[in-house]
Amino acid sequence: MTVQRIQTNDRLSGATIFSDLVFLSGQVPTDRSQNVAGQTAQVLAKVDALLTKASSDRSLMLSAQIWLSDIERDFEAMNDIWSAWLPVGCAPARATVEARLASADVLVEIMVVAVRRTA
Amino acid sequence: MTVQRIQTNDRLSGATIFSDLVFLSGQVPTDRSQNVAGQTAQVLAKVDALLTKASSDRSLMLSAQIWLSDIERDFEAMNDIWSAWLPVGCAPARATVEARLASADVLVEIMVVAVRRTA
Amino acid sequence: MTVQRIQTNDRLSGATIFSDLVFLSGQVPTDRSQNVAGQTAQVLAKVDALLTKASSDRSLMLSAQIWLSDIERDFEAMNDIWSAWLPVGCAPARATVEARLASADVLVEIMVVAVRRTA
Repeated sequence: MTVQRIQTNDRLSGATIFSDLVFLSGQVPTDRSQNVAGQTAQVLAKVDALLTKASSDRSLMLSAQIWLSDIERDFEAMNDIWSAWLPVGCAPARATVEARLASADVLVEIMVVAVRRTA
Repeated sequence: MTVQRIQTNDRLSGATIFSDLVFLSGQVPTDRSQNVAGQTAQVLAKVDALLTKASSDRSLMLSAQIWLSDIERDFEAMNDIWSAWLPVGCAPARATVEARLASADVLVEIMVVAVRRTA
Repeated sequence: MTVQRIQTNDRLSGATIFSDLVFLSGQVPTDRSQNVAGQTAQVLAKVDALLTKASSDRSLMLSAQIWLSDIERDFEAMNDIWSAWLPVGCAPARATVEARLASADVLVEIMVVAVRRTA
């Protein structure tokens, strides 16, 4: 029943692990001068890094929530990067909605639940 | 540690299954000319279909997220359809918030986590 | 494979429990005349109460979703209350986005997934 945590601060953990499940915090881009394609690539690199630390990877995602600050403008550009990043046949359940995010220059945020490699 | 997937494309899976847990993608209506009551009924029919494919059903939902494109106008009408659909005593944990959705004529989207019948 | 439910009505359960996992409904404040600090404190008290009923507590959260009706204005004030409430080293994975909530005077809503104490 132990919860493991990765990159924990006073507000959140980058990831939490319980049994075979991994929960990631919503990931946002560091360089917010980029367009949504660049920001999505940054976010997915952070997802990769956290999943690796949690003994998981992008082929083991169960669900993803994606927030876009302008879904009408940025939906397709985000999807192009997302689909290219996904291993074939490994897409998670997903929902994508629009939301104003923590900072006005954040165009995309992604939160993931995944399974851990335990075998 | 195997993840099973249902209706997988290059962007998402309609559902993912791991151990006893089922994660559905956010479901949206097909006929978007309908009002929120009609759209909610369509969405819940899609939830039923996916849960059935995943060896679950509407009495086994753990949590649901509901997005409405106009929560002030459509909250009660969505709730009427939702409550009539729920088996007595089987309501999941739930959160309902407003969000602009992938297309302007989508009034409601619902994402579910459920338990699989394994007995 | 039994799902347990706490405070179930025709719309939602305050919490659902399956195996070692606890899913809470999005919690909102009762006294909506308060500012976001007061409302966050109310919401966290409700989270505490539900987690206790589910044999869990605030040190066992896996993930949290936080919605603010005005993220630019209220992000820091919410975070101050949230961080003071969190036990040291126990922060969950988290995402915080803006959304219009079920009532215009609700400034904050929080939804949690946690682990049950089963030992």
